[in-house]
Amino acid sequence: MTQGKNMTAHTHQTAPTQFVEAKGIRFAYRRFGKAGGAPLVFNQHFTGTMDHWDPAVTDGLAKDREVVLFNNAGISNSSGDVPTTIDGMGANAVAFIKAVGLPKVDVLGFSIGGFVAQEIALQAPDMVRKLVLVGTGPRGGQGMATLTPEAQQIFGATYDPPDEIWLFVHFTPSEASQTAGREFLKRFRLRAKSRDPQVNEKVAPAQIEALTRWGAPQEKPFDYLKAITQPTLLVNGGKDVIIYPVNSFILQQNLPNAQLILYPDSAHGSQYQYPKLFVEHVSTFLDR
Amino acid sequence: MTQGKNMTAHTHQTAPTQFVEAKGIRFAYRRFGKAGGAPLVFNQHFTGTMDHWDPAVTDGLAKDREVVLFNNAGISNSSGDVPTTIDGMGANAVAFIKAVGLPKVDVLGFSIGGFVAQEIALQAPDMVRKLVLVGTGPRGGQGMATLTPEAQQIFGATYDPPDEIWLFVHFTPSEASQTAGREFLKRFRLRAKSRDPQVNEKVAPAQIEALTRWGAPQEKPFDYLKAITQPTLLVNGGKDVIIYPVNSFILQQNLPNAQLILYPDSAHGSQYQYPKLFVEHVSTFLDR
Repeated sequence: MTQGKNMTAHTHQTAPTQFVEAKGIRFAYRRFGKAGGAPLVFNQHFTGTMDHWDPAVTDGLAKDREVVLFNNAGISNSSGDVPTTIDGMGANAVAFIKAVGLPKVDVLGFSIGGFVAQEIALQAPDMVRKLVLVGTGPRGGQGMATLTPEAQQIFGATYDPPDEIWLFVHFTPSEASQTAGREFLKRFRLRAKSRDPQVNEKVAPAQIEALTRWGAPQEKPFDYLKAITQPTLLVNGGKDVIIYPVNSFILQQNLPNAQLILYPDSAHGSQYQYPKLFVEHVSTFLDR
Repeated sequence: MTQGKNMTAHTHQTAPTQFVEAKGIRFAYRRFGKAGGAPLVFNQHFTGTMDHWDPAVTDGLAKDREVVLFNNAGISNSSGDVPTTIDGMGANAVAFIKAVGLPKVDVLGFSIGGFVAQEIALQAPDMVRKLVLVGTGPRGGQGMATLTPEAQQIFGATYDPPDEIWLFVHFTPSEASQTAGREFLKRFRLRAKSRDPQVNEKVAPAQIEALTRWGAPQEKPFDYLKAITQPTLLVNGGKDVIIYPVNSFILQQNLPNAQLILYPDSAHGSQYQYPKLFVEHVSTFLDR
C-alpha cells in the first residue's frame, strides 16, 4: 500500500486524509515526507486528532523520513469505540500499522499516546525500530492514578476560543513560554481544508478510564519496562504539570536503552515550545 | 594575553602548557581551538589534571570555539594548596580566568568540577555566559554527604595499569560501555609529550573534605540554584554511581534555565562513552 516517492510532495497542510480497515475499524490517517527508511508513526494525546500535531514538528521531521499520523479507534473520523484500556488502544494501533503495510516503524507517542507507544512496543516488538516518548510516563507513575490536580483544573475550565486551552496544557505561565504558545496556536490553525472533526463526547471518559487504570499504583510497576529494549528517546518539559517530569526520569532509569531530554521553562508540550531543537534532537536520535 | 588566531594550529595533543599568576598562585593551563567567541573553560574531576580530559571531547568542541584547560590551585603543576571548600576552589578559578584575560566565558564542569563551575557562576555571574554541568549535583544532593558506597569501593581498589581505574569510574560494567571505555583509555594516553605530573598525596584528602561539605545535608539546599540564571546544560549517565543521576534531575528542576540530558547504559563519564553525541549536544546548546 506504500504510495512511493510522490508522497514527498505533501506536507502537514496538504496531506489528504486516507482510510484503511483493520479489526472492523476504519482508521483515518495521513502520510507525507521522505519515503525510504522506517516511517515515524505518531500517537496523539488526550482528546486530540491528527490536527493537534504541530506542523513545525511533523514537517520538520518529514524532511528526512516519512511521517504517519492517524486517529486511533473511536477518535474523530475513525470508526469504532475508544477502548477503556491502554492495552486495547495499543492493539488497535498495531492493527492499523499492519493494515497500512508497514513492517518496521519508529513510534512517537505524546502523553496518553506515549502509553500507547509503550504498548505497541510490548505487543509487536519486531515491528518497532525506535521509540520517542514525549510528555509521558510509566504504568503506576507518580501522580498518574488520576488526572493531576493541575490537569483537572486546566481541563475543567472553559476557553474562548476553545483551542486556547492548549496555551495552558502545553506551556508554562512564563512570558517566553506563552509567546511560544501563541506561535504554536498559529501553526496549529494553519491547515485550512479537510480538518478532522472534533472528538465526540464519549472519547474523554473512555480515555480517562484507560489512563487512570494505566497510572494506578501497582506491585513493581516498572518491571515491565525491561521488555522494551528498543532505543528510546524521552522528552519532556521540566515544568510539566499534566504528567510530572519525574515520570520521564523514572522511564529513563528503568528502560534498558533510553536517553532523556528535559527542556527548560516548559510544560507538557515542550516539543511545541522548542520545535526546531526538538526536531534536531529527534533526528539525531533516529539517524544514529 | 590572548594569543590570537595562531592558536587554532594547536590541538589537545600539542597545546603547550602555559602559566599565569593570580592570588599568588601559578596556574598551569592550555588553550587551543577556534578563537573568537566565548572560550569554554573546563573544570576537572576528583584528582584529575588537564590530561584527564578526553581529546575526542576537547578537540571536538575546539573545532568551533576556543577551549581552555587548567589545573586549579594545588593540582599537579599549579602551585598553591587545594582549598578544603568548593567556595575556595571557585574563587581560585575566577582569579585564573581573570588573569588569562577572559572577560566572558562558557564554563564546563565535570563532577567536583561541576560544583566549582556552579561557584564560578555564583561568584562572578557577569563573567559566565553559559554553563555545562556534567556528572555533577547540587549542594546537599542525594548520596553526596560522603563518597557513595560504590565510589568508596572503586577509589579504594588498586588497578594495573593504574589508569584502568577510569574504566570503573566512568563506565558501566556492560560490554558496550567497557568497550567504549577501552577506546577512551587509548585516547586518554595519546598525549605523549609534556603530560602533567600526577597530583600529590595532599590533593585527594582536601578535595574529599571540600566535596563532603558541599554535599552535606542542609536547610533548603537547592534555594541557591535560583541565583544561577545562565542557560545551563546538564549531562549525566543514567547509571552513574559516583554522583547519582537523580542529582542532575534535581539541578534541572531547581535551576531557572536548565536542559537535562541523560544517556543510556552509561556512568559518571557518559560524555566519554558518547563523545561525538556529547560534542553535538553541547555545540547545539552553546550555539543557540
